[in-house]
Amino acid sequence: MSLLRRSKVPKWNIRFNSNIANQHVFTSKTIGKDISTHQLLQDLGYINQPSTGLIHWLPLGLKVLHKVEGIIRKRMDEVGGEEFSLSSLSGKELWEKTGRWNNTELFKLKIGSGNDDFDKTRENFCLTPTHEEEITNILKNSQINYKNLPILTYQISRKYRYEKRPRGGLLRGREFLMKDAYSFDKSAEEAMEMYENLNNTYLKIFKDLKIPFLSANADSGDIGGSLSKEWHYIHESGEDVLHKCSECERVSNSELTISYPNEDTPPAKEADVRYMLNENKDTLICAYFPKDRKFMPNFIKDEIDDLDLSTLNLSFEEIYKQFKGEEEEDEDILVLKKFIRIMDPRINHQTNLPDFPISKFQKNNFSTLTDLSIVESKTGEICGDCESGFLESMNAIEVGHTFYLGTRYSNPLNAKFTNQDNKQQLFEMGCYGIGISRIVAAIATVTRDSEGLIWPSSISPYDVSLIEAPKSTRENIDEVVSILKNDDISISFDKRSLNKVGFGSKMINSRMLGFPLIIIIGSKFPIVEIEIRGKRWNNAEDYEYKSLFDQYASNWGWEIQNDKVEKHFVHKDHVSKVIKSLLKDL
Amino acid sequence: MSLLRRSKVPKWNIRFNSNIANQHVFTSKTIGKDISTHQLLQDLGYINQPSTGLIHWLPLGLKVLHKVEGIIRKRMDEVGGEEFSLSSLSGKELWEKTGRWNNTELFKLKIGSGNDDFDKTRENFCLTPTHEEEITNILKNSQINYKNLPILTYQISRKYRYEKRPRGGLLRGREFLMKDAYSFDKSAEEAMEMYENLNNTYLKIFKDLKIPFLSANADSGDIGGSLSKEWHYIHESGEDVLHKCSECERVSNSELTISYPNEDTPPAKEADVRYMLNENKDTLICAYFPKDRKFMPNFIKDEIDDLDLSTLNLSFEEIYKQFKGEEEEDEDILVLKKFIRIMDPRINHQTNLPDFPISKFQKNNFSTLTDLSIVESKTGEICGDCESGFLESMNAIEVGHTFYLGTRYSNPLNAKFTNQDNKQQLFEMGCYGIGISRIVAAIATVTRDSEGLIWPSSISPYDVSLIEAPKSTRENIDEVVSILKNDDISISFDKRSLNKVGFGSKMINSRMLGFPLIIIIGSKFPIVEIEIRGKRWNNAEDYEYKSLFDQYASNWGWEIQNDKVEKHFVHKDHVSKVIKSLLKDL
Repeated sequence: MSLLRRSKVPKWNIRFNSNIANQHVFTSKTIGKDISTHQLLQDLGYINQPSTGLIHWLPLGLKVLHKVEGIIRKRMDEVGGEEFSLSSLSGKELWEKTGRWNNTELFKLKIGSGNDDFDKTRENFCLTPTHEEEITNILKNSQINYKNLPILTYQISRKYRYEKRPRGGLLRGREFLMKDAYSFDKSAEEAMEMYENLNNTYLKIFKDLKIPFLSANADSGDIGGSLSKEWHYIHESGEDVLHKCSECERVSNSELTISYPNEDTPPAKEADVRYMLNENKDTLICAYFPKDRKFMPNFIKDEIDDLDLSTLNLSFEEIYKQFKGEEEEDEDILVLKKFIRIMDPRINHQTNLPDFPISKFQKNNFSTLTDLSIVESKTGEICGDCESGFLESMNAIEVGHTFYLGTRYSNPLNAKFTNQDNKQQLFEMGCYGIGISRIVAAIATVTRDSEGLIWPSSISPYDVSLIEAPKSTRENIDEVVSILKNDDISISFDKRSLNKVGFGSKMINSRMLGFPLIIIIGSKFPIVEIEIRGKRWNNAEDYEYKSLFDQYASNWGWEIQNDKVEKHFVHKDHVSKVIKSLLKDL
Repeated sequence: MSLLRRSKVPKWNIRFNSNIANQHVFTSKTIGKDISTHQLLQDLGYINQPSTGLIHWLPLGLKVLHKVEGIIRKRMDEVGGEEFSLSSLSGKELWEKTGRWNNTELFKLKIGSGNDDFDKTRENFCLTPTHEEEITNILKNSQINYKNLPILTYQISRKYRYEKRPRGGLLRGREFLMKDAYSFDKSAEEAMEMYENLNNTYLKIFKDLKIPFLSANADSGDIGGSLSKEWHYIHESGEDVLHKCSECERVSNSELTISYPNEDTPPAKEADVRYMLNENKDTLICAYFPKDRKFMPNFIKDEIDDLDLSTLNLSFEEIYKQFKGEEEEDEDILVLKKFIRIMDPRINHQTNLPDFPISKFQKNNFSTLTDLSIVESKTGEICGDCESGFLESMNAIEVGHTFYLGTRYSNPLNAKFTNQDNKQQLFEMGCYGIGISRIVAAIATVTRDSEGLIWPSSISPYDVSLIEAPKSTRENIDEVVSILKNDDISISFDKRSLNKVGFGSKMINSRMLGFPLIIIIGSKFPIVEIEIRGKRWNNAEDYEYKSLFDQYASNWGWEIQNDKVEKHFVHKDHVSKVIKSLLKDL
């Protein structure tokens, strides 16, 4: 029996080691062309999708996820973060106090006296999307005094969102991995310092990840607070739109980007109109803007404080009814009412305007604003902030968001510390999120090419893919493996026999998996071939390997070929040093 | 402004570093005596309990949790495990196939077309307690062939259980951290080898954790399969009972421990009886056993194959009705029926038996078994396995369970691989769980003393607690800190001023927190005092520090005092070496 089970061919000297993979069993044998990145990640065995919006992380994908986690944890520790791990289930009491219980994206469920009396009205817990409420409550109950502050807490854990129609795979799922951090300070001033520190930490994190990114001034949305920054990767598939000024270099999302048409732009031919009321319902606001542009009602709110944005959703009939007064029979009442016409600067007297729907009005009660831009910015328009540069618009994938919160949560939860005068005072807070699973998907999307994935070395599952070319021997491969292993270079090695899977297929497969370097061992041994699969993210002048090459090329038998792909040839004894210098740029 | 904010006293040279803590803000100022370990962990700021059965891990507790994780991950990687991370939500389809959907401890919820139409009958997902179904399904769909096998998968993630009445804090919660592993093999024989390998890995993990443990042969319960081992810490508060034989050294849980009374035990005075039927309802089984002992019906099932255990829950009236035949009027029918009397060996003719409830029977139809032990074992009784040793019974906390599963899951899910003959064949499986949060609670419970927690160095949040005694200087402390920091010794340092918190309070607090060593810097500097707070888990002859002491004591100024506690005094230049050798035994 034991004789039968002993293989005739000597076994590879490659034993299991978490730094060496010799099979990727979840990688499909055939992979379609032109598939989405989400499908590519599945076909290559990085992830598995058991049902819409849910993800199983397979060994390859989990290695990427863990590397992103590692980068973030290191930088959060550096800035003084203390790691927590809060329960994924949170009771509704705290969420009712902060007014977030009715958020429709909250993943609610019921925990109670048995599983068997389900009742919507008794949903009393949620699977947490973030943890402002719980962490603030912990600090509230911890008798914190001013000497303990600032406190920066963070955690890396699964979060949940009740997406009715989840899409985009990892980018918009029901369960996702996130780093969320919360800061507690003595004063608004120190909380702002903390916010700046954390933005600086985010800069470092994104630089560590190597892929070009943008941070944008943004709206705070449901999280609350008064100041926030979004962190993005630029990609045409992104759901967000960012605008960057050529002059002042300000980057902001559409909600915060006001723009003006440049001089060369002809006025719009056709205008569209939207009607709204103020809160007293005695002023009709009529907003005219080019028919082909996206209307941004928030920009009006900045100018007209008492604008009732909710009236935007009403039909004109309903608006008219409220404007006239529901019980009022006589249309003459309208001559007492006020009208504000907002004419987006992209329209003028040459533009066709829709008919004005009301005939009874007094000209004296009519005012017109012509300087207020009320549409989403477009590439080539003038920056509303510096009023001199030109804006460039681009789609982007949001992967992080930093917020200065002030007392948005400490106030409703009554979370206080003891100040220097021995009085109770509300915490000044900030919160800071990064979507870890989202970063993996975004980087895969931004970097992939027609041949497959391309991971930056910072988060690649393995440093190199090792390939046996015809005429290599097992001894040669074992020797290179043990050299790389000693130098802590992680290796993916396809152990399938060349008789079964040809060299060409193995190369295609390696490129597809996207590790930064492919090491080929063939007939030129002890010269080893290194093919560059990764991308370089810095300037050609700064490449790390260049000075090494200038110094040692002849001693190390190091040559470079630049055909379709860049290849390095080097003697096995120096291969680790060359690999490490190449990885720094990839 | 900047002048005002600059402190007058020079600041400690101790900056934040994830290896140095200088405040434990979640540790209460006052901690009650005689509190439960669960309360102690909360009061000391290791954990926080937001609601019954749920836990927030605070920085101190999370460090312990991460260290346990690290030990387990290392050993799982060594044995060839590949790490996964499966979704915490799983659809009901797979669970219905394996027959586990109706488990009452399954934490079910509904995901569907909106949050707003909750309906118990439409619960379609669960928060996963384990992942046999999902991982088996992934392998089923991965076109695995025999060359890819064996495959060992594992993950470390949060699991959920719908406990109606959660209790014991971390020991029985609704959300807990677990390592679960699943193995896939070509044959039952190789699956058994894998099971043995994993049991061996568990031995290593428990040895790494340092605290004495026991593994016990066990029942497989709801998970299924035919062979399993439980892993326990012995403690009087444990909910499980284990029995160990003095002779054959077999350890098993109550379900698998058959015992016999020893010769000195007098027969029971009073007996109790339980009635059951066989599956055909034509045999009445009457089990007699000592009134003060726990009845174990499973032991009868081993002897009487067709025993219908469900009849145990019926009243005698109901049993009598089924036994006689529901439509049968005449009691004479009973003379055709069979009776089996089981007399536990602890009762004899001197024991008072309850009256026999049926008068019509034929003596010929009556059989009596007197060798079958049918009660839970007790300390001092004879081992039913070797029949020579004496059993010792003890309470224990279960923290791990390893199972040989066979085709328990691959069969209902039809999960197959391609074998050497190119045919489809069912996977042979095993599964292997360790409760990580449970281990933290169990070790805290088993090791604590009246002064507080005592962590083994393997999982302690910090190696040492550093204390400033009167007459120390900040320079001296800074110097020791930088020595320890350079030598990678992690430090908890209480920075509160001695004027505010006295030396005695700081010592009490340090002992309570439970780090293995307390380093005291005082007037004897450069001699540093090291107080042993941890426990030693091996034999005095094997203590690591002894040979070092014999060799270097005089050179290093190293002295030992053994008063109430063991104290070492050593020159600062050698303190790291002494600390490291001491930690090895703690």
